[in-house]
Amino acid sequence: MAAPPISQILASAPIDLTPYESLYKHLHTHPELSNHELTTSKTCAAHLTALGVFTLHTKIGGHGLAGVFENGPGKKVLLRADMDALPILEKTGLPYASTVTALGADGLPTPVMHACGHDMHMTCLLAAAETLVKLRESWSGTLIVLFQPAEERGTGAKAMVDDGLYDRVPVPDYVIGQHVMAMRAGSVGFRAGTIMAGADSLKITLFGNGGHGSQPHRTVDPAVLAAHVVVRLQGIVSREVDYNDVAVLTVGSIQAGKTENIIADHATIGVDIRSVSLATRAKLLSAIERVVKAECVASGASKEPLIEVTRNLPKTVNDEAMANRLETSFRRHFESSFDPDIPVTTIAEDFSILGTSQGVPCAFWHWGGIDPALWDEKSRQGRLLDIPVNHSSGFAPIIQPTMRTGVETLCVAALEFFSGREQSKL
Amino acid sequence: MAAPPISQILASAPIDLTPYESLYKHLHTHPELSNHELTTSKTCAAHLTALGVFTLHTKIGGHGLAGVFENGPGKKVLLRADMDALPILEKTGLPYASTVTALGADGLPTPVMHACGHDMHMTCLLAAAETLVKLRESWSGTLIVLFQPAEERGTGAKAMVDDGLYDRVPVPDYVIGQHVMAMRAGSVGFRAGTIMAGADSLKITLFGNGGHGSQPHRTVDPAVLAAHVVVRLQGIVSREVDYNDVAVLTVGSIQAGKTENIIADHATIGVDIRSVSLATRAKLLSAIERVVKAECVASGASKEPLIEVTRNLPKTVNDEAMANRLETSFRRHFESSFDPDIPVTTIAEDFSILGTSQGVPCAFWHWGGIDPALWDEKSRQGRLLDIPVNHSSGFAPIIQPTMRTGVETLCVAALEFFSGREQSKL
Amino acid sequence: MAAPPISQILASAPIDLTPYESLYKHLHTHPELSNHELTTSKTCAAHLTALGVFTLHTKIGGHGLAGVFENGPGKKVLLRADMDALPILEKTGLPYASTVTALGADGLPTPVMHACGHDMHMTCLLAAAETLVKLRESWSGTLIVLFQPAEERGTGAKAMVDDGLYDRVPVPDYVIGQHVMAMRAGSVGFRAGTIMAGADSLKITLFGNGGHGSQPHRTVDPAVLAAHVVVRLQGIVSREVDYNDVAVLTVGSIQAGKTENIIADHATIGVDIRSVSLATRAKLLSAIERVVKAECVASGASKEPLIEVTRNLPKTVNDEAMANRLETSFRRHFESSFDPDIPVTTIAEDFSILGTSQGVPCAFWHWGGIDPALWDEKSRQGRLLDIPVNHSSGFAPIIQPTMRTGVETLCVAALEFFSGREQSKL
Amino acid sequence: MAAPPISQILASAPIDLTPYESLYKHLHTHPELSNHELTTSKTCAAHLTALGVFTLHTKIGGHGLAGVFENGPGKKVLLRADMDALPILEKTGLPYASTVTALGADGLPTPVMHACGHDMHMTCLLAAAETLVKLRESWSGTLIVLFQPAEERGTGAKAMVDDGLYDRVPVPDYVIGQHVMAMRAGSVGFRAGTIMAGADSLKITLFGNGGHGSQPHRTVDPAVLAAHVVVRLQGIVSREVDYNDVAVLTVGSIQAGKTENIIADHATIGVDIRSVSLATRAKLLSAIERVVKAECVASGASKEPLIEVTRNLPKTVNDEAMANRLETSFRRHFESSFDPDIPVTTIAEDFSILGTSQGVPCAFWHWGGIDPALWDEKSRQGRLLDIPVNHSSGFAPIIQPTMRTGVETLCVAALEFFSGREQSKL
Repeated sequence: MAAPPISQILASAPIDLTPYESLYKHLHTHPELSNHELTTSKTCAAHLTALGVFTLHTKIGGHGLAGVFENGPGKKVLLRADMDALPILEKTGLPYASTVTALGADGLPTPVMHACGHDMHMTCLLAAAETLVKLRESWSGTLIVLFQPAEERGTGAKAMVDDGLYDRVPVPDYVIGQHVMAMRAGSVGFRAGTIMAGADSLKITLFGNGGHGSQPHRTVDPAVLAAHVVVRLQGIVSREVDYNDVAVLTVGSIQAGKTENIIADHATIGVDIRSVSLATRAKLLSAIERVVKAECVASGASKEPLIEVTRNLPKTVNDEAMANRLETSFRRHFESSFDPDIPVTTIAEDFSILGTSQGVPCAFWHWGGIDPALWDEKSRQGRLLDIPVNHSSGFAPIIQPTMRTGVETLCVAALEFFSGREQSKL
Repeated sequence: MAAPPISQILASAPIDLTPYESLYKHLHTHPELSNHELTTSKTCAAHLTALGVFTLHTKIGGHGLAGVFENGPGKKVLLRADMDALPILEKTGLPYASTVTALGADGLPTPVMHACGHDMHMTCLLAAAETLVKLRESWSGTLIVLFQPAEERGTGAKAMVDDGLYDRVPVPDYVIGQHVMAMRAGSVGFRAGTIMAGADSLKITLFGNGGHGSQPHRTVDPAVLAAHVVVRLQGIVSREVDYNDVAVLTVGSIQAGKTENIIADHATIGVDIRSVSLATRAKLLSAIERVVKAECVASGASKEPLIEVTRNLPKTVNDEAMANRLETSFRRHFESSFDPDIPVTTIAEDFSILGTSQGVPCAFWHWGGIDPALWDEKSRQGRLLDIPVNHSSGFAPIIQPTMRTGVETLCVAALEFFSGREQSKL
Repeated sequence: MAAPPISQILASAPIDLTPYESLYKHLHTHPELSNHELTTSKTCAAHLTALGVFTLHTKIGGHGLAGVFENGPGKKVLLRADMDALPILEKTGLPYASTVTALGADGLPTPVMHACGHDMHMTCLLAAAETLVKLRESWSGTLIVLFQPAEERGTGAKAMVDDGLYDRVPVPDYVIGQHVMAMRAGSVGFRAGTIMAGADSLKITLFGNGGHGSQPHRTVDPAVLAAHVVVRLQGIVSREVDYNDVAVLTVGSIQAGKTENIIADHATIGVDIRSVSLATRAKLLSAIERVVKAECVASGASKEPLIEVTRNLPKTVNDEAMANRLETSFRRHFESSFDPDIPVTTIAEDFSILGTSQGVPCAFWHWGGIDPALWDEKSRQGRLLDIPVNHSSGFAPIIQPTMRTGVETLCVAALEFFSGREQSKL
Repeated sequence: MAAPPISQILASAPIDLTPYESLYKHLHTHPELSNHELTTSKTCAAHLTALGVFTLHTKIGGHGLAGVFENGPGKKVLLRADMDALPILEKTGLPYASTVTALGADGLPTPVMHACGHDMHMTCLLAAAETLVKLRESWSGTLIVLFQPAEERGTGAKAMVDDGLYDRVPVPDYVIGQHVMAMRAGSVGFRAGTIMAGADSLKITLFGNGGHGSQPHRTVDPAVLAAHVVVRLQGIVSREVDYNDVAVLTVGSIQAGKTENIIADHATIGVDIRSVSLATRAKLLSAIERVVKAECVASGASKEPLIEVTRNLPKTVNDEAMANRLETSFRRHFESSFDPDIPVTTIAEDFSILGTSQGVPCAFWHWGGIDPALWDEKSRQGRLLDIPVNHSSGFAPIIQPTMRTGVETLCVAALEFFSGREQSKL
């Protein structure tokens, strides 16, 4: 006899999301920066413990956490959420907005905010875990739930793997992740093959010669140099990259001097690039180096710039076989709210390292977090750009239906890949 | 009978500068930022107290200090030094270099350094005070020594006046100050009329719309906006100001974003201008506003920029009558090491507020702090620009002959202006 | 009985291309600018006349030419070539290189060059006409060969239509064109749907206030203004356009002043944009206007800029039904040298106006003109960018196999669409 | 007996300026570009001939003209005017405005205009010649009137000297010139020492790789490169030159491409610099080279830029002894309309080569050409910048009192320097 459809299984054991809404608000109010997810990790561990069936592994690659629920023979499915927040001053105006300040990577105090939705990721994964525990009779296999630190720095997945993640938990058959996005809440987006670009971050130090702000002729002004570099870098994507390639080059930060009347002796800029093709990535990196070095010469800098790689994220590629199965399951469950062909996004993830490092196939999708009424209104006005996106100070998913959808996606996918479900499509 | 020449009077009562060299090193090692000169002020007060004749007034306009020595009838002469240091990381490599870190004006920790020579100013003034006390039989009148806070912020002189300075100490007949510069040590430079330009500082906030670094099309990038503003501002002096005018426009600081992969929602730049003519000052300020506002429009910023005046320093004008007397005295004492016609400098001071606020004439000069051997070598090589200037991380006067000269200038000027010296020129 | 395959038909009546090679060289040596194709048009007309079966129509929309060969009942197929050359100084070093100079659109003398391959287009169309005449027994219908002027100005197709083209020649059932490209000679590239982007050209006049080059402070410098505009425009594609969209913004010309020591009173820039989506086109046009106007304000220009549209080319969209038939025919004939899925190109054409103005379906493809040996070597070295592209002073197709392929493409397509060929695919 | 005052001598022999006003209008309506002053030169020669006393020398260094009037023993005084016009489209709206078009230095047609007042220079010199002839009884010596070609190219004075000027006319004892300026008509301005800066002009060719405007990734865009160079050059004066130095750097021309949709393979910019100090000149030239080369590297240009010197003008230095005498004479004659201490101007001249090449002292002054009523009104409004300056399309001196003053200056100076006048100051 064929197994019942996944939607029917899910409908048979609804869970109460009210406590998860409270948990979400709590996490949102208490964000922690990359590599400082201590309390967050403990909160997630406590919830997993309460479910009664998970073996917990903590402090993997920093504050990484994994829970393993062995539920009979069968496939091993890993569901992943990320835990860290960003050094952004929250401006959502929400009653549960963050007012947290912490020491940033530069040793200086910074406001902190869950501006990328990782609080929603964790909450959905915990609720999915409860659901799957409640549905334990409907599936067989091993469920691994993983809470990753330091996604924003692009180091957490690798740190967990390097710290012996797979000595502690079984190597899964499938690695699954998801990201909440500035899309209409209730919607789910996917694409086979590359869904997210690769990312590289650079810290570039430009050396001038400092002096009194009133005596520029006795200095080499690094602020002017930095400005010319930033301006010049804008031409790389617009002039040097094929218009059919995906490429983004952003200067996220410029730091030069501290006061008006001192010419500093150096400036630093933080550069982020996104690319799908390796040739385009190489072209971007080489063009950046060319421009930066030449601008230093143009300013008469006595010293070569220092270009340091601070982050490298692989592209996220959805396995073809997993993609086929997911597309079928998601279309059945989400119907027209599921889009199997969203464009490649340049938002990047270190998620896939959890799979590719072991030769295990991965799948990753996006789901929406924007109030449908707002979305529809802005869409009608042609003003979708008004809606705050991930990493902006105004980004916060509407709690429902965002959370409900994010729990269902994880459950549908897990049930799809657990043993014995292949025939459900017959 | 004519009074003996000033040089002869000075030579009659030499003081030992050894303890002042130690004091200088101590002050250099323990710099304090503007408005935080608590310990510095106490150190100066202790030295004055030790001289036994000064009535002290403390906490004037913050940590301002004044000492009054009434030495018979006659003119009242005010000698001024400034006390504050700068948020710069010292790179002089000196054994007594500063390693101090303190909270800056922005509430964030910053290294602190005496990069403008105020430590030398204070030391010379204290040594001059001792000398004049020792020479008390040679002059008659009232000596006021004043240690001013917050010169670097341009607020200290006004704060002292506003806080009742001249209710506590007598209004002087002459107000005198000096500044150590990247000139040959041993040399003294002066000019009648305007010797230092006026200065204005602006903090400009540029508003974009933040977002994820990979999604620039959904943001207005304030880093790119700031870069264009900084680049565009360079054209004001080179295109809009008459080549016969003195004008400097420096962007001392740019702050945009904190990490590579977030597009911030604003950027700030710190702008400093110098001018001699009021018309040029007005032109600079108006051109800055025009450029900044237009560049915000060019970027599609939804919000007008915020332009705040953070500092305003008047130009420093040497009184003609004082100038005549000082030129005679200095030429006699310093001979060919005295230059009565140095060019106007754009380095600015709030010093003259101590006089102009009371309608009292002022005089101000520069003296050299650079090792004569180094100066001569660099001069021969045509590489004077190699020498670190005020406000650079490598600036530190050579202790001698800098200090000796800086004490003599103050003593010569004071003796010149005390009662009964007019006839010395006969 | 099914008709024999097209390749077999073609092989049955080879023509001698030697005279066409001479014609090609002649046309290449004697290029004529847009709207001045008088001699070129006469040359083509003479060749058509020599074929003995064409009714000729001349001076349509300028120097436009059409020949009609009624060969029995059936479909009417229009094959189009373009005739005009470009204001470029030829640097190919070929023995038949152009040394022509003519008056340009600005009334000034300019060198002229067939840098876009229209000479090859005409030659191939004439040879295809001879071939189809020779094969007249193998097809039935009406062949229209059309030689269009002023393609480079984007005005020729519309001018011919507006001048009554379809009052003189029958409205075709199919409109067909092709373009030689910097691809490997022998290869043919196609894509269903949009194959070429739309293009818009703007002439922008920026007003300053002129004056003596030594007195910039008494002027508003339009050269500096133009430079800032050009620099600022580079950020539109890189910051404002979705990385998944096709968009190009090029400033092809800057003209400011004539001598070093005069500041001119205006500057002009020529801007060209390419886009596939209408929303992106609107965004580009609006961003250009925003940037240009704001930069004028930033410069203190007393006058608004003048933005004039000089050209508008629609995108070129391959009709789906024609695309299906062409793909089948071309794959059979050209086998692996045919690529049915080349990327969209931003090179634009006014070709499709010949069809869309009448509601008639169009098809258009690219074929290669680069020496295969050179292509393969550069490809191996990863230096394909060394190869001169259309509109560069070094662009010239290798005569063979370029010509042979360009004749075959036209003949295969014509034979495909003439009546009676549908069943050939059975 | 002392000679009568010069003013009295002049008043004794007034000439009628009416025909000179007509001559001025004629010259203004018929401007000729540098090195094409054929008709202008003939017109001047005809007027000189009519005076009946001049020996004429023509075609010296091109269209150069000199007339010698030997009027007894004594000093030899050379008075010089320049003859050439500029490639500017006149926009004065005057009834006698130029509508002339001629072939420019680049071989292309250009409008031509007397936008620098050389027409006024010539007219005043001819009228002064008539006056001095009329006053021949009042002075003794040799009067040389010289009409120089190609001043705007900076080559005419040298060409005349190199072509044997002083083999044909006697070497003078004094060389005198003047320039009409955007100053109040009636006023005369002078300064001892350097009155006009030196000038250097450069033509800089920037090499890219051309291509189709829609394919920037296959090109190196020289328009963008040129824009970055122009923007970057603005920082040299504002950041690298001492604010006490006189320095101007102007990019007078940018030429890149001809049409919107072609990316050219090179761009040219014309750069003009002005400086008083040789060290500043060297700094400007070296900074230009540094910036231009580095920007080519930043663009990935495959070829070094070509930097050609097209013009070099020395500074104009007023001889001290001549200055003393002129100041006295001019003050007596023009009273408060004479300013002996105008600022250095960066407008440059090759005038002084006529003297310095022979070791002969020179003197040069400026006089005003702006309608006094307009000047006073604009001055009151603080809108002097509204007034068109030399080299702008709206520049034209008001005929009177400009001409009268320009005749008097030449006559006063000539009479001052002719033999026997030294004692007039007693």
